[in-house]
Amino acid sequence: MAEGSLAALIDSLRRLPGIGAKSAQRLAFHLLQHDREGAQRLAQALQAASTSVRHCERCHTFTEAPVCDICLDPQRDARLLCVVESPADRAALERTGSYRGLYFVLMGRISPLDGLGARDIGVGELLQRAGDGVTEEVIVATNFTAEGEATAHVIGEALKARGLKVTRLARGVPIGSELEYVDLGTIAHALSDRR
Amino acid sequence: MAEGSLAALIDSLRRLPGIGAKSAQRLAFHLLQHDREGAQRLAQALQAASTSVRHCERCHTFTEAPVCDICLDPQRDARLLCVVESPADRAALERTGSYRGLYFVLMGRISPLDGLGARDIGVGELLQRAGDGVTEEVIVATNFTAEGEATAHVIGEALKARGLKVTRLARGVPIGSELEYVDLGTIAHALSDRR
Ligand SMILES: [Zn+2]
Ligand SMILES: [Zn+2]
Repeated sequence: MAEGSLAALIDSLRRLPGIGAKSAQRLAFHLLQHDREGAQRLAQALQAASTSVRHCERCHTFTEAPVCDICLDPQRDARLLCVVESPADRAALERTGSYRGLYFVLMGRISPLDGLGARDIGVGELLQRAGDGVTEEVIVATNFTAEGEATAHVIGEALKARGLKVTRLARGVPIGSELEYVDLGTIAHALSDRR
Repeated sequence: MAEGSLAALIDSLRRLPGIGAKSAQRLAFHLLQHDREGAQRLAQALQAASTSVRHCERCHTFTEAPVCDICLDPQRDARLLCVVESPADRAALERTGSYRGLYFVLMGRISPLDGLGARDIGVGELLQRAGDGVTEEVIVATNFTAEGEATAHVIGEALKARGLKVTRLARGVPIGSELEYVDLGTIAHALSDRR
C-alpha cells in the first residue's frame, strides 16, 4: 500500500524481532504522523550505536572502549568469573551490589532450535578467558530455563576439564524464569548460596 | 546498565508506542549482536521517510509527491469521496477492487481520551475538500468502533449541513472490529450495501 521511502521504512521495521507487518505499519505511521523528531533521533541512535558499539576484549559485553569499565576496575576480584547470557543479566547481578568479581557475557545460550551452538555464543572465548591463570572459580549464571541449564552443563564440563572450580547460582532463583526479571534480593541470596 | 550510544539507542526505541523498557533493550541487543546491517538499513529508512514523506494536498494521505497517485488518477469517479481513518484503511478498501471514487484520509479518529478532537484529525480540511463542487456523495468509512462511530457522526452532521449526501458503509462490517483486519469480501459487500 505504501510507495518508496514509506514502504522501505515499514519493511525495515518489520524485520525487527517481534514486530509483525501490522505493528511495523502502525509504528511507521505513528512516527511520520506524530513524532518525526523521534524518527530522526532513532535514526541517529541506530547509526551511532551500530558504528561505535563493540565487544569488550576481555568479557565480550557491549562497550564503546576496547575493554569495558568492569574489566578495567582494579577493585574487582579477578579470581571470580561470573558467566551470564546477556549484558542485561550482568546488569541485574551488578544491581544486587553483592558480587565483586569479573564477568564473561555469552551473548546468548545454546539453542539448537535457533541454530545456536557453543561456538555461536562464544564458549571458546570463555575457555580462553577463564584459562588466564588468575581465575579460580567460574560462577555459571546462565538462566534457569531449559536452554540456560543445557548451556550451563556444556560450559561446566568444559571448564572442569580444564581444572577450574565451577559453581552455579543457588536454586533460589525460581525455575523457568529469566534472570533479568527476578527481584534483586532473590538474586543476591542465590549468589551467596551458590554451590 | 548501558553507557553512551547503546543507552541512547535503547532510550529511542523505548519511546516507540507499544515498546517497553525490556523490549527496547532486547531490540537494541538483537540489532547490535545479530543485525548491524539491519540497524543501518533502519536508520537510513527512518531518515529518508521522515524527510521525504508528506501529506497529499488533496486527500491528506502519506505521499512523497505533492498529490498522491489516486488523487491524480483521471479514471477515478470524482463525485464520490470516501473518508477513512488511516492509509491502511484506504489500502484495505483499494484491495477490494470495488471502489472507484476518491478518498480523504483523516489520520486518526476523534478520541477525547487521547486528546484528539475534530481539528487534530483534519475535519476542517475534509469539509474544504468535500466542498469542491464536484463531490456529490461522501462515504464515511471510519472504523465501526465507538470512537469511529462518534467520528462518523460528527463528520456526517457537518457534511449534511453543507448539503452533501452522506452515506456510511453497511453494517456488514462486524461491530467492534477495525477495518484493516476485515476480510475483503465483507468490505466489498458493505460498500455496495452502503446506506
Ligand atoms: Zn569487559
Ligand atoms: Zn491524495
